[in-house]
Amino acid sequence: MTTNSPGNSQWGGRFAAGPSAIMQAINASIGFDRKMWRQDIAGSLAHAAMLAHVGIIGAEDEAAIREGLGRIAARIEAGDFPWDEGLEDIHMNIEARLTQAIGEAGKRLHTGRSRNDQVALDVRLWVRDAIDGLSGQVEDVMRALVARAEEHAGTVMPGFTHLQPAQPVTFGHHLLAYVEMLSRDLSRLRDCRRRMNESPLGAAALAGTGFPIDRHMTAKALGFDGPTRNSLDSVASRDFAAEFLFACAMCATHLSRFAEEVVIWTNPYFGFVRLSDAFTTGSSIMPQKRNPDAAELVRGKTGRITGALVGLLTVLKGLALTYFKDMQEDKEGIFDAAENLTLCLAAVAGMMRDMQPDAARLEAAAGAGFSTATDLADWLVRELRMPFRDAHHVTGRLVAKAEARGCDLAGLSLAEMQAEEARIHEGIYGVLTVQASVASRTSYGGTAPENVRRMAAEWRERLA
Amino acid sequence: MTTNSPGNSQWGGRFAAGPSAIMQAINASIGFDRKMWRQDIAGSLAHAAMLAHVGIIGAEDEAAIREGLGRIAARIEAGDFPWDEGLEDIHMNIEARLTQAIGEAGKRLHTGRSRNDQVALDVRLWVRDAIDGLSGQVEDVMRALVARAEEHAGTVMPGFTHLQPAQPVTFGHHLLAYVEMLSRDLSRLRDCRRRMNESPLGAAALAGTGFPIDRHMTAKALGFDGPTRNSLDSVASRDFAAEFLFACAMCATHLSRFAEEVVIWTNPYFGFVRLSDAFTTGSSIMPQKRNPDAAELVRGKTGRITGALVGLLTVLKGLALTYFKDMQEDKEGIFDAAENLTLCLAAVAGMMRDMQPDAARLEAAAGAGFSTATDLADWLVRELRMPFRDAHHVTGRLVAKAEARGCDLAGLSLAEMQAEEARIHEGIYGVLTVQASVASRTSYGGTAPENVRRMAAEWRERLA
Amino acid sequence: MTTNSPGNSQWGGRFAAGPSAIMQAINASIGFDRKMWRQDIAGSLAHAAMLAHVGIIGAEDEAAIREGLGRIAARIEAGDFPWDEGLEDIHMNIEARLTQAIGEAGKRLHTGRSRNDQVALDVRLWVRDAIDGLSGQVEDVMRALVARAEEHAGTVMPGFTHLQPAQPVTFGHHLLAYVEMLSRDLSRLRDCRRRMNESPLGAAALAGTGFPIDRHMTAKALGFDGPTRNSLDSVASRDFAAEFLFACAMCATHLSRFAEEVVIWTNPYFGFVRLSDAFTTGSSIMPQKRNPDAAELVRGKTGRITGALVGLLTVLKGLALTYFKDMQEDKEGIFDAAENLTLCLAAVAGMMRDMQPDAARLEAAAGAGFSTATDLADWLVRELRMPFRDAHHVTGRLVAKAEARGCDLAGLSLAEMQAEEARIHEGIYGVLTVQASVASRTSYGGTAPENVRRMAAEWRERLA
Amino acid sequence: MTTNSPGNSQWGGRFAAGPSAIMQAINASIGFDRKMWRQDIAGSLAHAAMLAHVGIIGAEDEAAIREGLGRIAARIEAGDFPWDEGLEDIHMNIEARLTQAIGEAGKRLHTGRSRNDQVALDVRLWVRDAIDGLSGQVEDVMRALVARAEEHAGTVMPGFTHLQPAQPVTFGHHLLAYVEMLSRDLSRLRDCRRRMNESPLGAAALAGTGFPIDRHMTAKALGFDGPTRNSLDSVASRDFAAEFLFACAMCATHLSRFAEEVVIWTNPYFGFVRLSDAFTTGSSIMPQKRNPDAAELVRGKTGRITGALVGLLTVLKGLALTYFKDMQEDKEGIFDAAENLTLCLAAVAGMMRDMQPDAARLEAAAGAGFSTATDLADWLVRELRMPFRDAHHVTGRLVAKAEARGCDLAGLSLAEMQAEEARIHEGIYGVLTVQASVASRTSYGGTAPENVRRMAAEWRERLA
Repeated sequence: MTTNSPGNSQWGGRFAAGPSAIMQAINASIGFDRKMWRQDIAGSLAHAAMLAHVGIIGAEDEAAIREGLGRIAARIEAGDFPWDEGLEDIHMNIEARLTQAIGEAGKRLHTGRSRNDQVALDVRLWVRDAIDGLSGQVEDVMRALVARAEEHAGTVMPGFTHLQPAQPVTFGHHLLAYVEMLSRDLSRLRDCRRRMNESPLGAAALAGTGFPIDRHMTAKALGFDGPTRNSLDSVASRDFAAEFLFACAMCATHLSRFAEEVVIWTNPYFGFVRLSDAFTTGSSIMPQKRNPDAAELVRGKTGRITGALVGLLTVLKGLALTYFKDMQEDKEGIFDAAENLTLCLAAVAGMMRDMQPDAARLEAAAGAGFSTATDLADWLVRELRMPFRDAHHVTGRLVAKAEARGCDLAGLSLAEMQAEEARIHEGIYGVLTVQASVASRTSYGGTAPENVRRMAAEWRERLA
Repeated sequence: MTTNSPGNSQWGGRFAAGPSAIMQAINASIGFDRKMWRQDIAGSLAHAAMLAHVGIIGAEDEAAIREGLGRIAARIEAGDFPWDEGLEDIHMNIEARLTQAIGEAGKRLHTGRSRNDQVALDVRLWVRDAIDGLSGQVEDVMRALVARAEEHAGTVMPGFTHLQPAQPVTFGHHLLAYVEMLSRDLSRLRDCRRRMNESPLGAAALAGTGFPIDRHMTAKALGFDGPTRNSLDSVASRDFAAEFLFACAMCATHLSRFAEEVVIWTNPYFGFVRLSDAFTTGSSIMPQKRNPDAAELVRGKTGRITGALVGLLTVLKGLALTYFKDMQEDKEGIFDAAENLTLCLAAVAGMMRDMQPDAARLEAAAGAGFSTATDLADWLVRELRMPFRDAHHVTGRLVAKAEARGCDLAGLSLAEMQAEEARIHEGIYGVLTVQASVASRTSYGGTAPENVRRMAAEWRERLA
Repeated sequence: MTTNSPGNSQWGGRFAAGPSAIMQAINASIGFDRKMWRQDIAGSLAHAAMLAHVGIIGAEDEAAIREGLGRIAARIEAGDFPWDEGLEDIHMNIEARLTQAIGEAGKRLHTGRSRNDQVALDVRLWVRDAIDGLSGQVEDVMRALVARAEEHAGTVMPGFTHLQPAQPVTFGHHLLAYVEMLSRDLSRLRDCRRRMNESPLGAAALAGTGFPIDRHMTAKALGFDGPTRNSLDSVASRDFAAEFLFACAMCATHLSRFAEEVVIWTNPYFGFVRLSDAFTTGSSIMPQKRNPDAAELVRGKTGRITGALVGLLTVLKGLALTYFKDMQEDKEGIFDAAENLTLCLAAVAGMMRDMQPDAARLEAAAGAGFSTATDLADWLVRELRMPFRDAHHVTGRLVAKAEARGCDLAGLSLAEMQAEEARIHEGIYGVLTVQASVASRTSYGGTAPENVRRMAAEWRERLA
Repeated sequence: MTTNSPGNSQWGGRFAAGPSAIMQAINASIGFDRKMWRQDIAGSLAHAAMLAHVGIIGAEDEAAIREGLGRIAARIEAGDFPWDEGLEDIHMNIEARLTQAIGEAGKRLHTGRSRNDQVALDVRLWVRDAIDGLSGQVEDVMRALVARAEEHAGTVMPGFTHLQPAQPVTFGHHLLAYVEMLSRDLSRLRDCRRRMNESPLGAAALAGTGFPIDRHMTAKALGFDGPTRNSLDSVASRDFAAEFLFACAMCATHLSRFAEEVVIWTNPYFGFVRLSDAFTTGSSIMPQKRNPDAAELVRGKTGRITGALVGLLTVLKGLALTYFKDMQEDKEGIFDAAENLTLCLAAVAGMMRDMQPDAARLEAAAGAGFSTATDLADWLVRELRMPFRDAHHVTGRLVAKAEARGCDLAGLSLAEMQAEEARIHEGIYGVLTVQASVASRTSYGGTAPENVRRMAAEWRERLA
């Protein structure tokens, strides 16, 4: 069946070496958990300092540990740390090397902790760092959006529902919609950070310990608000990671909406915005073809981030307490989601700064298709005290008349209008332009340029 | 192909009536969105009061609307409201009936709003109510757990990792682990509520409105912290619903872990707890068979709730702004997830109160398998200042000796112990019992009964 | 906290009646599994006939059962069957009513079977019916696509990559792309049907039975290819349902791509196709606004179907053998997915037949943007034997020249072309028109109208 | 906020180099698509041979290409190919290097194809190889299960529903349940292979080509059943990849059920099976602790595979035709899922061969808890012609009597039995043993050892 298959050798005989090769392959995590080396060392430093402080180890032991871990960190940073697959994970790689280097003191480091609380700590620290990095990026995208929104507070464009032009809005107002979404994404990341910012260190294997450790001290040293309150929960729970993945997936989904709009806006029939070569790829023979690759990738990467969320929820479903090796599967999804969201945010910030809206084209589009019909109807309600539903019927007839005549609403004469509703007067022409339409929408949160400017300024200050 | 198929007629000819039947079937939402009737009427009442307050409608109009909506609410409550599929959704059903009943005033109600902000409002109100209801239930489960934890603060049981007994813990401590998880679930629900608690009413179709509406007034009347800040975002976003679904899915996942434990604990080889007939089903011929159906359903229902989350993220992925009919697909997932989580929480609260742990069996299990070996090792570190890793080697040898002798650790004579490590003295026997083991784990968050009592009392007060 | 909340009473006190109300609410399935009444009765009829055939029950018992079930079916069909929540599920409702009606014989019906194999049977029969119904609908959509493809085999339009026009294709060719996708969806449904078409009836509770039942006979009577081969697997497995859900989700995803195109094509800047009022909704005041609601709903419903798939995979993850009540959660997802895919397929078939492409606009769009640049490059390779990569460089220079001149490629004089590549001759003008471009793509599967006609005819015959 | 955060530098300043660094980072795929080098070269070889055969390139060109690609393959295999990130993907890396090496001929290779059909081809070939490899592994697991099933065709164990012992079955029968599940997984992989086994090569960018290429020739050379029928579909569709991911997710879910059982069975209170050190990890101080890490990882890895499926469905949802850069996101999910399923299958095969059931313990457990009560009830039906439901009532009373007496069913005297039902005779004792119970379940697919042996032999032959 596989005669013509060029590459299936990868599956053949790979595990011929037997059970130990299989177990090594499925069990070892050093291939990916080494990403947490900074977190692992930071945790050990805090733990050793505490052990010395409460007298479980001596000051010289702690000094030796500190110095030894410093050298290990330097080697990893420099890329010449001798990772050993046989030592399975980041924790054993570092501890084994430390003991090799400093002897006896190294063997004392693990007192009052266990791999279970150690890995829980490392993952938390890593996620917390990721939140901080991503939060900064989200703010950066928001700043980019706000800057362009201020610039284009008065640039009119069609507002869409169902991808059909509905009412004129401003380009700045449209961008601020994404600022709102991202501000909630940011707020979710911060809530996640706050909720998870408790130190599991000292939960030990699962039951806590009889050593007189000071969990508050290590918690403080590592920037936590305090220690976790239940040792079983500390080693068994990963909801902080799932919440982080949801926050990432939600943010990626918001970015996918923006990306879809970029793809649509750069289509030549829209021609709403132009992206430079920096964020498009072309064709050697079709110079007009500017493929918005960056936007497409932002849109597509939503998949893997949502997938990572589903993956972790699947892992946790129906898992008894406390630690199971299943939970080793939390890491790669987190790493991948964080890294890809970083790419997406960087790309969106870049596109946002790069993008050039075509104001003339946007304005022309904004005025097409009786886009101020609702303004006319509202005028009837406001000026003539017509009930809303009746005003809509009159407007419908006027639009039909204009359509039949081949003109826009302002093209109808007063007489033509009065034939439908006698009380209409000259004042009506004041609400039929695109500029008047957007200027009139001054309700809180509405698209009026003055609103947009005020809101953008507020955001600018808040993000400063 | 379908000769033997008993029921495929449901697919045959259903849409023979042509396009209008298809469109009606796919488009109408009244079949499910009528669940939001309370929210829809509350929103209209607030809107009408505001319209009158700012002078857009007269006081008598508002009075008529208020009275008319009151009668409609009464009829719906009583179950005799004439729902009309042709009117498509909850909003039109109510407005049409209102206008029928009170005439002119009814036609003025929709001034300064649109179906887009109206539906956004209704969904928010519904989700907010759901959060309040579910939050109360989560607290109820927590209270049930805390009560049983206080009762069993000193009841020892095996603590597991990998479903292998590892160290003794207390039953109360185990239950408090779930209190911690649920407290985070509760906190997520509350964060979600706070973040979403802004009123979209007045965003109108998408651009805001020129009517001098007072969005702060309606927001306040409906219990919101204020109005949303961007009209496009208000009608286009559903991240509050996705966040709600995540909070539900995470909580359901936590409950699935508890449910898995109930299934395992009630298995006769475990026999850790007993559930009464109220939460089990039996067999007419196998009286010892007590199927923990409620726990199984709690575990299984995680699937549909996670599925609802994935469903909404899929809907939102790549959706341009602003409103699309795709978003009508937000509701059924929310309704189903909320309703099923309600069932799960009620079932878990019930089981928690019903469950009888078998203390004797738990204690016997807690003492089996050299479960205090880590206590022995810690004693060596503490008393003899042995490095942690060395202490583990000595302990390993002592356990092997006991295993060979067929006794437990306390069964080894002092001489036998001293043969491995000469400095061991009588004091060691004090740490080898299950009771001593749990009592010693006094580190913050550890399983010592005094810790458990203090923590349970704290929770009890916080939840009072 | 809930002061302003209009409707939270639904959560209050619902379970005040205590454990039995909770258990009833979470456990009872009659609210949804009654959808399988036809399947349940068909299974019982086949089982009774077999029991009589092998002598386990008498002929008069079987006759009584047959007659009694017939009357029950008639009552259910007529809508006056007295469903009883206390009887929990469809199986007990029917059996209890049967025994009430016919006495003794009713009590013999359950011999040699169990609720575990009975429910497994009913679900299989229901899914098989759904597959048959959905398969017929997929074929209907394919027929609609093929008919329009034949009609528009020569209608040119732009072919897109990255939503940027790339090369001319034909509208018919584009439609046939969906025929291919749907043919694979159909093929997946059929594979799923074939794989699941084995009867679990007779697996009994989980171990098979000692009664001399004839499982081949019931399998045949119910249209199965034969009985399942392992009783434990028969009651424990639901992969057939998950596979069905995947087939539905994949098909829905394909339809979502079509729906996205409809949304884009009906946008006025594209204006590629027009949908009639049957599949759009309008605005009373904006007659040009034709919201493609049906397409949007088709696109959005992908979410819930994918969600149902995730839901069932979540349920099955980590479930030990054999039957667990968790598996009761298989049904609602299946029902919902099948029903919604039915709606989507009906809507797509309807839109396909309804849609009017604007041939003039499509052709104009197809010719814009140097869309035949690749034809020019290919001509250089073919006629002048230039290496492909070199031909692309020459083409790039010619396009740049045309762009600078503001003409299209055919607007360049021969001299202008020869300035870039001396060997170019008059023949080149023959490949620069849109019509020539599509006509030339005669490679197997290419867009040439003759290809499209031949392929459409093949499909038409295959689907006849 | 990040003061105490040890490692957030990874987010800081990474994209300081500006847009080009961002675009490079998000766009380049060479970091992962190089896994497809064998497939890419195989495709190019077939393409070049065809181009020469139909006269589009000369024989010497094809010879140069063949030789050049051969050398490139050798270098990649040897690990010294100079991958260049600037060349973005596997296709350009190889083609650029080829042209560098052989000049002019290299520039002709891309005639009549495009990166769009090339990448579609490579992914298909890779997935097809993965299917072949995984199918072989699934068969291997099946063979392992069948071998142990034959060995333990008569080893009795409790059969469970709801994790409560229900009826005795045999260990071999239980293992064969997984053979059935895996046989369907295998069948799904094969259906997926068959359905996808069409060559997209020659679809070119999207429209086909005017070159007289022979797509049937390349299809045949690459082991395909033929070419795809529509060029747009060929470059736009990835359902074959999603179907592959579903087949993987379903198989992983089945393995997760087995893994859950291994975790439960190796728990000491069950003690049903023992795994050697090869598949467990221990504790230096708790020798009795044998953590079934391999099983836990198998169970946990279901998450990422299901996540990959969701990821790809999310990518494809709502994507217009034809190629978009979003689709670049198909690869890493496929690679990761295939690689992890490979690990899972290897681990399950290994555990299956390694596992030692404790026959004595299984038999004792099988006999506990009135496990033959249904046999007694069936005897009443069979021998005394009691209606099934009545027989159950009598059995229930007998079980209650035995429970009260503290004996099992066989411990009741005939008189005691006759007190409940006078017609009971000595024959009843013949059905009350575990051995009799399993031996009696001879219905097709039932657990009788003779059935198990026959079925296992059938599978053994089929898998030979």
